[in-house]
Amino acid sequence: MTGSDPQGTRDGDAEPGVSRRGLLGAGAAGAAVGFAGGAAAVGVAVSTGEAHASGSRSGASSYPYFGAHQAGIVTPAQDRLHFAAFDLSDALDREGLIELLTEWTAAASRLTQGLEVAEGGAVGGSDYAPPVDTGEALGLPAAGLTITFGFGPGLFEDASGGDRFGIADRRPAALEPLPRFQGDALVPERSGGDLCIQACADDPQVAVHAIRNLSRIAFGRATLRWSQLGFGRTSSTSTSQATPRNLFGFKDGTANVKAEETGEVDEQVWVGDGDEPAWLAGGSYLVARRIRMIIENWDRVQLGEQEMLVGRSKGEGAPLSGGTEFTEPDFEATGAADAPLIDANAHVRLAHSSNNKGARMLRRGYNFVDGNDELGRLDAGLFFLSFQRSPQQFIDVQTSLATDGLNEYLKHVGSAIFAVPGGIAEGEFVGQRLFD
Amino acid sequence: MTGSDPQGTRDGDAEPGVSRRGLLGAGAAGAAVGFAGGAAAVGVAVSTGEAHASGSRSGASSYPYFGAHQAGIVTPAQDRLHFAAFDLSDALDREGLIELLTEWTAAASRLTQGLEVAEGGAVGGSDYAPPVDTGEALGLPAAGLTITFGFGPGLFEDASGGDRFGIADRRPAALEPLPRFQGDALVPERSGGDLCIQACADDPQVAVHAIRNLSRIAFGRATLRWSQLGFGRTSSTSTSQATPRNLFGFKDGTANVKAEETGEVDEQVWVGDGDEPAWLAGGSYLVARRIRMIIENWDRVQLGEQEMLVGRSKGEGAPLSGGTEFTEPDFEATGAADAPLIDANAHVRLAHSSNNKGARMLRRGYNFVDGNDELGRLDAGLFFLSFQRSPQQFIDVQTSLATDGLNEYLKHVGSAIFAVPGGIAEGEFVGQRLFD
Repeated sequence: MTGSDPQGTRDGDAEPGVSRRGLLGAGAAGAAVGFAGGAAAVGVAVSTGEAHASGSRSGASSYPYFGAHQAGIVTPAQDRLHFAAFDLSDALDREGLIELLTEWTAAASRLTQGLEVAEGGAVGGSDYAPPVDTGEALGLPAAGLTITFGFGPGLFEDASGGDRFGIADRRPAALEPLPRFQGDALVPERSGGDLCIQACADDPQVAVHAIRNLSRIAFGRATLRWSQLGFGRTSSTSTSQATPRNLFGFKDGTANVKAEETGEVDEQVWVGDGDEPAWLAGGSYLVARRIRMIIENWDRVQLGEQEMLVGRSKGEGAPLSGGTEFTEPDFEATGAADAPLIDANAHVRLAHSSNNKGARMLRRGYNFVDGNDELGRLDAGLFFLSFQRSPQQFIDVQTSLATDGLNEYLKHVGSAIFAVPGGIAEGEFVGQRLFD
Repeated sequence: MTGSDPQGTRDGDAEPGVSRRGLLGAGAAGAAVGFAGGAAAVGVAVSTGEAHASGSRSGASSYPYFGAHQAGIVTPAQDRLHFAAFDLSDALDREGLIELLTEWTAAASRLTQGLEVAEGGAVGGSDYAPPVDTGEALGLPAAGLTITFGFGPGLFEDASGGDRFGIADRRPAALEPLPRFQGDALVPERSGGDLCIQACADDPQVAVHAIRNLSRIAFGRATLRWSQLGFGRTSSTSTSQATPRNLFGFKDGTANVKAEETGEVDEQVWVGDGDEPAWLAGGSYLVARRIRMIIENWDRVQLGEQEMLVGRSKGEGAPLSGGTEFTEPDFEATGAADAPLIDANAHVRLAHSSNNKGARMLRRGYNFVDGNDELGRLDAGLFFLSFQRSPQQFIDVQTSLATDGLNEYLKHVGSAIFAVPGGIAEGEFVGQRLFD
């Protein structure tokens, strides 16, 4: 069990806070190697130098904003999330949309570097104007903030079928609302959206500050449709990270696509150069699902049955066919009376790539608790986020999960899909190639 | 402005994570001195040793559970909060209540030390029984978890005026629902409660795990009435901590009672030996207020007006009468045309002890964001928590704030009051003296 190695679980985590406040401030830059090394392995640089120029919140660990892909996908999953989906104003035209994306890009390029949202910031402007930055992140480091933008189906065709942005013919064929799945109990107010922003950071105040200031920029052009905070990551996206636990108490994402599997990332996550549409090359598709877990019922399930439903041991996270956490499950292995050690409907079997035409996804989900319902049950669950080269990967796996015994304890209440443009070069705005 | 000293704000923080994962694991125990020193100054010990016995999640920094006062009051404010209020079952009798409090005490004494909620834990029991611990904190350190229990008015008299617990005559006279204040828009589902639990930790998953497992223990005896997560502390309770910012972007709690002011803590926070009722000596009164901030409107207010309303500068947090953050405000100072430098209705003036018969409180509030409303505005604000020797201290200050210009941007939607019993000796249950 994990309890016997209590410090092990998080040893490998990216812990910018450690280097930043504790060590770099005292000049012990060598101690940051663990983090910088992990990041370097996935092709990002980490700034560990002195404080930025005026207006900077930090000289702390941060991820570059510009690059071949948007950050926040293969970036080692940060601890906290604020995710927001927006509806575009009916009055917005093509020029207005491009302006919004340009302003968001400029703001995100600053925020991710630990800077305030724009020059002047919270306190550097005129006494007679509202501050350009809302100020609650003053003094906080960049905290590994990444900001990732996505485009929903509504960007390409509005409710009345119009093409006001002149991009209807560039809509990815695969960017369709997801089909209805077993267990769906979707709430419109928690689903859909024309645009999305995923803000991940190691400090929730930094992630909240980013979403708040980007929402503010969008005023009159895009309105917050729904938003979700996540307090604990439920997936690792780097082999440098230990596997975290979801609110069923199980390790989650052991078989996740990791940044270091560069071949798999190219195969499963990034839209390729030869894929359609061309403007999306280097991008990905993002699926978001708000999955309520009925944890009070789950907590009454016998340990043995919990493990049977998942197909893994609760402590170690090893497949029930034997081994340790990262041992490949042996779906053929049998035990007493020739029964399969991993049940026919175990989650690990149904979700496994071998059961889904080889499909894997890069998951970046988060645990959430949003108060409680009127029965006194915590409104808790998993805010599932996955990035994949094609939405079909998610659809295939989710279809396979129709017979998953875990469904008895799950309710999918929110769903959305977005096309995530590729990386942004300096001087460009996010998704610029869509408008070229 | 703070931006010029970006690392300064959090330098003084209790950062168990730093020592625990980054340094102590490597044997560099000396680096924990900053944290241990801060804690020692307020009379608590910090365990920095090896992993606990079997079932422990950590050998990490933790606060003792037993002592003269409950932890989680003068303890340096941890970064994250999960707060829960419970209603007692109508069927519960005195014996059942004592059993619940005894079980909660035993569980809390373990959880705060980084142990699972009971022997056996998540994976150490029978395959044929539900695990006693829900498991999502397996492998996580204690993360500075404190668990603080409080008793609401309903514990002493049920809705029909009955005295089923036989303690009606021991009800503190001051433990009355708070009067109605200017700006109150209270929602019953976010207010009141017969019992409360405040769980604070530096890792939200640890705080959520505590509330979840304590709720589970209460099944059939007490039901979650409302609960609140807080993602960022808005007060310091120790001089070792820098002042954090609320969602107005201002430093909050500069004038807070700090643990190191032992005379003030005795005077303002703890119920004294000579106070009534005697069973509450060493305890305190807790006021909880869910204060929604209309941040979108606030963000349109000129910087100069924001500062005038607060009475402090936004960057440094200095009083507008001059000086730096911790300079005492000079309410007599005048500027041009003999106008007071600190406005007559500035928040800092109305809230100041000199305007409230000397009353101060120990605040332990948290920022929250719970999604957004149907207009696309973030459901954001301050979850205000204050501890005081008498509820009158809060009532006086809140009454003074009736003319506070900030009220235009605030809505109080939740309110509750609790009597917080004094510290627990080993072998006792929380509040035992109430039943003696």
